Amino acid sequence: MGEFDLIEHYFKSAAKSSAGVDLGIGDDCALLAPAPGMQLAISSDMLVEGRHFLSTVSPEALGHKALAVNLSDLAACGAKPAAFTLALSLPHVDEAWLAGFSRGLFTLADAHGCALIGGDTTAGPLNICITIFGHVPTGQALLRSGAKAGDDVYVSGLPGQARLALEAFRGNISLEEKGFALTRERMERPTPRVALGQALRGIASSAIDVSDGLLGDFGHVLKASQLGADIDLSAIDSIAAHAYFFPASSRFDQKFLRKMVLSGGDDYELVFTAPASKREAVQAAAQATQTHITRIGQTQAAPGLRLLEANGELAPNDFTSFDHFKS
Amino acid sequence: MGEFDLIEHYFKSAAKSSAGVDLGIGDDCALLAPAPGMQLAISSDMLVEGRHFLSTVSPEALGHKALAVNLSDLAACGAKPAAFTLALSLPHVDEAWLAGFSRGLFTLADAHGCALIGGDTTAGPLNICITIFGHVPTGQALLRSGAKAGDDVYVSGLPGQARLALEAFRGNISLEEKGFALTRERMERPTPRVALGQALRGIASSAIDVSDGLLGDFGHVLKASQLGADIDLSAIDSIAAHAYFFPASSRFDQKFLRKMVLSGGDDYELVFTAPASKREAVQAAAQATQTHITRIGQTQAAPGLRLLEANGELAPNDFTSFDHFKS
Repeated sequence: MGEFDLIEHYFKSAAKSSAGVDLGIGDDCALLAPAPGMQLAISSDMLVEGRHFLSTVSPEALGHKALAVNLSDLAACGAKPAAFTLALSLPHVDEAWLAGFSRGLFTLADAHGCALIGGDTTAGPLNICITIFGHVPTGQALLRSGAKAGDDVYVSGLPGQARLALEAFRGNISLEEKGFALTRERMERPTPRVALGQALRGIASSAIDVSDGLLGDFGHVLKASQLGADIDLSAIDSIAAHAYFFPASSRFDQKFLRKMVLSGGDDYELVFTAPASKREAVQAAAQATQTHITRIGQTQAAPGLRLLEANGELAPNDFTSFDHFKS
Repeated sequence: MGEFDLIEHYFKSAAKSSAGVDLGIGDDCALLAPAPGMQLAISSDMLVEGRHFLSTVSPEALGHKALAVNLSDLAACGAKPAAFTLALSLPHVDEAWLAGFSRGLFTLADAHGCALIGGDTTAGPLNICITIFGHVPTGQALLRSGAKAGDDVYVSGLPGQARLALEAFRGNISLEEKGFALTRERMERPTPRVALGQALRGIASSAIDVSDGLLGDFGHVLKASQLGADIDLSAIDSIAAHAYFFPASSRFDQKFLRKMVLSGGDDYELVFTAPASKREAVQAAAQATQTHITRIGQTQAAPGLRLLEANGELAPNDFTSFDHFKS
């Protein structure tokens, strides 16, 4: 099967229409026009084997994850998904792989009304590059730079689970079957917090998604907002208690569990800030979108990120973020 | 130098503002808003070593080419460049490479007022994925599907030169120094026909850019427009005569030269159609944008692509297109 047949068969035929898409896949360019009063939110992510996924991942889970990490960027801006382009480099035309990959991809895309509008395929080392487009009312996007001193800090879901699975794959820890299955699912099939992101528009003052680790990514918010923050370690321990309820977790010490939560990466949860006056609205947004959230601290005018024990004692911060060129 | 420093140093600092870009590089998403009455034209291309460029290419030429192939897609739609995202996978952080690559990239981007608005960097086999955005008045984009029976067929520039250089690199032919330098420049630093594409809005009935070979790519226009075409081989010979004016070309036979022009690929010239009534307007658009164009045939209601000698005799069409998974 040649390149054009391949595109046609696995991708073009599955492409659906979507609001704001005037022309989809099949020409030199796609054509989009956001409705009046709307901005187009755009993000691009590239996934490489060994860096963003293991060779053991199923093609279907990979199709899911490739789009999920992009949807997560739209979620962090509070944008509603509309469309995406897919550029794919493959070592060879493997139909079983393509069938699984496209099934995982389009199942998630269809669930979010997100239409494939173009892209590229080529032979080469496996590489998946998706650029995604969403709509957001003009001026209402959640930005990294919007946090104010004294805002509450929240995180969605149970960050750390994805990293726990990675540590098990690396042979650094062992997990019993149930714990491994649960955390592997979080690593391979993350849930982008698309509905929560949109529900937080007008409520949250800033947001970012956690791809490289909670503290590291939240550090970008603090830098952009020119703030510091106090993080409440008892809240982090409570996330760990929820995240690792399976028997094996009793073998892990507190420091290891905190490390998973604070610098694990690959979670695609949202870290966001909101004024204390909006606590009820934040909880309502979480409930309306059926998303677990935890309040984990407060921003401060004083720069720096401080980790505080329940007794107010300062704990050392040796939780580094994931660097794609170092680890 | 870590991943974030790298982004900051070579890309973020060079990013410029552009019309319609509300928020550029540095957040989870960029924000674009086309002006009222405008559509956003979007295209995505992925470049892989050995497929789209040779290991001998300079980083600066590669930076140029990576953006040029995307600008060429905007040109084929008649869109005005506005912005792009860059996703880059690199085996390691090589500052000399990055300095050259970003210089080539931004020199071309700045010349077209095209702003970097986001992207991604990761460690992995060298891979460059650019998604580009341009503006086009609503309903005026040049599409593959717009050709009508009896339209003239044109091609810009001198297609075939890029392939001649590739054949020389592969050792299949030898070129003297001047010819090699000229054709290598066409292969490594193609000129996207951005001004011509915009000038052809309202004049051309269809357009496509030549990446995989003139006949193969024009075949997509014929398929989308449900037409056939007669191609005038004397016009193709005239392109070859212009393209290979250097002494070595006298060693190549007519069939080889025709093959270079008709199925060479990597040219990033525009093939377009226009009604015969618009011949003067087409010539005026070419002159206004200082672009060499050649009229090479005519579309027909009868399906199929026919190659005609000057005496009207039908020549065999064995000029196949480039398939990224076959050649």
